Amino acid sequence: MGASVTRQLIESHVVGGTPAPGEEIALRVDQTLAQDATGTLVMQELEAIGLDRARTEVSVQYVDHNLLQADERNAEDHAFLRSAARRYGLWFSKPGNGVSHPTHMQRFGVPGRTLVGSDSHTCAAGSLGMLAIGVGGLEVALAIAGRPLYLRTPRVFGVRLVGRLGPWVSAKDVILEMLRRHGVNGGLDTVIEYYGPGLAGLSAMDRHVIANMGAELGATSTVFPSDAAVREFLRAEGREDDFVELAAAEDAEYDLTDEIDLGAVEPLIARPSSPGNVVPVREVAGEPVSQVVIGSSANPGTRDFAIAAAMVAGRQTHDGVSFDVNPTSRQILQDLTRMGATFDLIAAGARIHQAGCMGCIGMGQAPAVGQNSLRTFPRNFPGRSGTREDAVWLCSPETAAASALTGEITDPRDLADLSYPELALPARSSVNTAMLERPPPADEARDEKLVKGPNISALPDFEPLPDAVDAPVLLKMGDDVSTDEISPAGARALPFRSNIPKLAEFTFGGVDEGYPRRAAERGAHVVVAGRNYGQGSSREHAAITPRYLGLVAVVAKSFARIHWQNLANFGVVPLEFADPDDYDAVDPDDTLRLANLREALSSGAELEVINLGKDTPLRVRHRLSARQVDTILAGGAIAGLAHRPAREEPS
Amino acid sequence: MGASVTRQLIESHVVGGTPAPGEEIALRVDQTLAQDATGTLVMQELEAIGLDRARTEVSVQYVDHNLLQADERNAEDHAFLRSAARRYGLWFSKPGNGVSHPTHMQRFGVPGRTLVGSDSHTCAAGSLGMLAIGVGGLEVALAIAGRPLYLRTPRVFGVRLVGRLGPWVSAKDVILEMLRRHGVNGGLDTVIEYYGPGLAGLSAMDRHVIANMGAELGATSTVFPSDAAVREFLRAEGREDDFVELAAAEDAEYDLTDEIDLGAVEPLIARPSSPGNVVPVREVAGEPVSQVVIGSSANPGTRDFAIAAAMVAGRQTHDGVSFDVNPTSRQILQDLTRMGATFDLIAAGARIHQAGCMGCIGMGQAPAVGQNSLRTFPRNFPGRSGTREDAVWLCSPETAAASALTGEITDPRDLADLSYPELALPARSSVNTAMLERPPPADEARDEKLVKGPNISALPDFEPLPDAVDAPVLLKMGDDVSTDEISPAGARALPFRSNIPKLAEFTFGGVDEGYPRRAAERGAHVVVAGRNYGQGSSREHAAITPRYLGLVAVVAKSFARIHWQNLANFGVVPLEFADPDDYDAVDPDDTLRLANLREALSSGAELEVINLGKDTPLRVRHRLSARQVDTILAGGAIAGLAHRPAREEPS
Repeated sequence: MGASVTRQLIESHVVGGTPAPGEEIALRVDQTLAQDATGTLVMQELEAIGLDRARTEVSVQYVDHNLLQADERNAEDHAFLRSAARRYGLWFSKPGNGVSHPTHMQRFGVPGRTLVGSDSHTCAAGSLGMLAIGVGGLEVALAIAGRPLYLRTPRVFGVRLVGRLGPWVSAKDVILEMLRRHGVNGGLDTVIEYYGPGLAGLSAMDRHVIANMGAELGATSTVFPSDAAVREFLRAEGREDDFVELAAAEDAEYDLTDEIDLGAVEPLIARPSSPGNVVPVREVAGEPVSQVVIGSSANPGTRDFAIAAAMVAGRQTHDGVSFDVNPTSRQILQDLTRMGATFDLIAAGARIHQAGCMGCIGMGQAPAVGQNSLRTFPRNFPGRSGTREDAVWLCSPETAAASALTGEITDPRDLADLSYPELALPARSSVNTAMLERPPPADEARDEKLVKGPNISALPDFEPLPDAVDAPVLLKMGDDVSTDEISPAGARALPFRSNIPKLAEFTFGGVDEGYPRRAAERGAHVVVAGRNYGQGSSREHAAITPRYLGLVAVVAKSFARIHWQNLANFGVVPLEFADPDDYDAVDPDDTLRLANLREALSSGAELEVINLGKDTPLRVRHRLSARQVDTILAGGAIAGLAHRPAREEPS
Repeated sequence: MGASVTRQLIESHVVGGTPAPGEEIALRVDQTLAQDATGTLVMQELEAIGLDRARTEVSVQYVDHNLLQADERNAEDHAFLRSAARRYGLWFSKPGNGVSHPTHMQRFGVPGRTLVGSDSHTCAAGSLGMLAIGVGGLEVALAIAGRPLYLRTPRVFGVRLVGRLGPWVSAKDVILEMLRRHGVNGGLDTVIEYYGPGLAGLSAMDRHVIANMGAELGATSTVFPSDAAVREFLRAEGREDDFVELAAAEDAEYDLTDEIDLGAVEPLIARPSSPGNVVPVREVAGEPVSQVVIGSSANPGTRDFAIAAAMVAGRQTHDGVSFDVNPTSRQILQDLTRMGATFDLIAAGARIHQAGCMGCIGMGQAPAVGQNSLRTFPRNFPGRSGTREDAVWLCSPETAAASALTGEITDPRDLADLSYPELALPARSSVNTAMLERPPPADEARDEKLVKGPNISALPDFEPLPDAVDAPVLLKMGDDVSTDEISPAGARALPFRSNIPKLAEFTFGGVDEGYPRRAAERGAHVVVAGRNYGQGSSREHAAITPRYLGLVAVVAKSFARIHWQNLANFGVVPLEFADPDDYDAVDPDDTLRLANLREALSSGAELEVINLGKDTPLRVRHRLSARQVDTILAGGAIAGLAHRPAREEPS
């Protein structure tokens, strides 16, 4: 049996363990990326490690999240990140240079390499035939320091593409079709690998759209082969020399399979408030729309903006609609401006914003309560827009632009007076690296001082795990709780991403605002959740801030991968109900007795917990590796880093 | 003796009183404008009046301040404003269409007309030979309802311009030269009128720059003649038919005079933290710069961006500088994009933001503490940037762009490798009115429902002025306290501009954060201040929120015009020390006895106050008209509006 691209990538990078599904392996990391909302912790972790200089082939610190600068905190974060990038030998992508994922793909991505990034959409680089995995910031810091990435070996989910997309249907509709079929849990513990004749009609940036939102299926990553489309992309970026061909063996086998006929895909849209609520656009056509936003890493390419520009060119968007355009990078905005698309968008009434994540992470562009906002973004979890009772829908640029013209949700195929535009995209992109600062040479870098404004707090110290604790259940949650609900995105909380004590006041803000106060009163405690707990973004803050407030363990039906790893990294025990029905046997304010905890974790995967509230035993289990158990017993990885800098630095 | 343009404008609009300096007159109002941060109150006031339809020639509601949309409040304000504009027959300028002043000038300004606006920079329209006056929102509401503007007749300050500006020197340096000579009090109670041969070299938009920042001199307004330059401007906007010639008589006399030789003006810059701290750029050259921002109503024209674009074209801005560009209007951005300037700015590393006020009103772009930010804005009052200990400098686009290239404050004349660029500006501007919504016809408008989200609070009810009160002095302040310090701009407070109880929590945030709490404890109270109290913006919130918290009177050495009028409108007594030295005889926490207040105000301009803390009498006076005294006795104008809607609507 021949190897899939995914298996080839794993085989060429494994440095420990046996790559069999479910087994923990260690992978060599070639490249890393961080963005600012997670990166300030990465840099503080590098400082705790005592790193001298990055040991990867390429490491980049992007600034794309905290761009509003409503007060001095954002600017202080940026100054800190720049100084730390220079000190530790990372590239620095200035505020306004663009969203990490498309920028990284354009300037740094190389087929066949591994990439880890402290952003859940890092997987977008799978479009170039990379194995690109979103992780918590600590994993990125360790990778920068030359340590391997530890990972539970995923299964490979092969999706065969046949046919060609019709007019008005684009890559976004393909990934929405995947979400329609498989839901937000459909990719758990898998790498989704696309193959087949349908690939020929998808550009590398189209594949980015599909790979990016693999995160919404819960997949560990998404992988495409590196073929002619990738070569063409790298040529347009002036980097054809970086091209490496990568293809699955003819007889490659997959652990799971599916097939999509691209010609049968129609315009789709995710209803509020989950990327999994996908329906055909025609099913909801006519709903009034007050905002339309184009942009984000889920539709980042020149083509995605150009198609919208061509649709609105010479027309006016609807009076009742705010039509917002977020260029994903400076380079892409430069291309769009050169080809006239920026002009067409402005003339049609667009609000053109600076290049960055913007509304996608709730930094501005919040809609009015209950008013429909159509976005080409990857996520619409409740409140992520910055508005508590929001109504955010996810769709393609074609559907978004059509709806901006009519003022109501519109299938672009139903626009009577518009024929499908022919786009003339530039064969060469602008290639502008001037907002990417190259790190100084090592000897010069050693003189670089870290610039720490008052908002950059020290990393908190955590105690080792207690051996026994009677812990009240402070929260009981349902399925699919996102990290947006645990540690909110948005303009109120994000500026405190470098300040754990302050950020902790927002913990579980999307679930129960009383949690921080109760945690302060009750001390050590647990929370209970349903399936897929911690889906969404990679922010380790969703583990650190509840830990800071006394969280000892989470008992859930199942966990999303990155958050599960973050909990372990910060000393919180992620436990699963051995019998999911036991979820119903625990109520808020019950107290769980965790006894003999240290030995129980070390000695086996199952342990017993007593629900003192009901006086009943409860069987729970963990999926931690021995390495992870050690980390938890020590109180998390930061404690280890801070106290043993020399050992953490590989020779 | 012949009449100045100012006198001609007054004479042609006076409908009551005698226009002698210091006397209150009533002026017919032809046009009004409001922006969103003040406009939500204007619309609530129209509702209180019970207005059916605007009685002006043109009234426009702009949305340019609250554009960040960090949560749902901004979007709810926008929806409310749109519905109210439609209901009352106002034009509505959508979010993203641009800053009110340049947009109004391009689309609505007509020489010879009067304009009042609830924004202190309304005076910018003086560039077209209008008498344009910034006032509180209530004055705008009354003007919309057909009532005249009451005004203390200003003196006319004639400034003769001779010569021509040299290379690298522009209109911004002219108004900075005025501020260098006369300071932030230099224009109090005057209209500054420019005349002379030097005008020939200044375009209408150059004049806008100069007229706009007349507000920083404390002037009631600024007036230019309507000449060939104005005709050319209107022709470029497709409105040559609106041109009316207006010139001062050859022998016009002025109450005050000055002369500027434009050829002798050099690049100037205002140091932190007052527009009056002006020095030559060369005197501070070499200071490191971390941020440069181009835009705002103080440098709004296509030319202002184009010169910066030409300077950075083909170059890269400095690695350590964030180079931010705020287009002032959609139309201007369209022109800049058409002529290639947008491309040059992007390629050089600019962060291009949506069209609007943005950082000028502290909505984003806050710099790091203590790091120098160079801005082409009109104001740099402490904290207005959103950063408490900011270091904001004001300068021309030429000086800003030069400093963005070098990373330090730089006189553009000292850029070794750059010759002064020749600009090819478009002869016709883009003229795009699609984001300007025309009000529906009156019969249709009557069916329009006001859209009031939860953030639109009712106007507060105020009691009539008490006859006697022992009022503690809750604050004693120095000279030149700005409305930014009384009711902060910026991303934290601005979203609550429609919600007085909530906004009141920020009152005097720039002076003493303990004030709201002390006011709640102490009830009726006074504050004491030095000269030019309430300079800066027109926001009536700076009168309403302290009034809401119990402020009865302000005792100051002198007042800035708009705030003085706002205090009277909302029932707070503005008192001046008869002897300015008495300022030293009052301490914080003294108690002032105001006895027999109602009769004392009505019967004369002077009254006696007892400082119970020192047991000494204090002579104070007021400059209120009988009309204003009546308003104060009633508890402010809103009380009157709310209870007597029929009478307030003129027939």
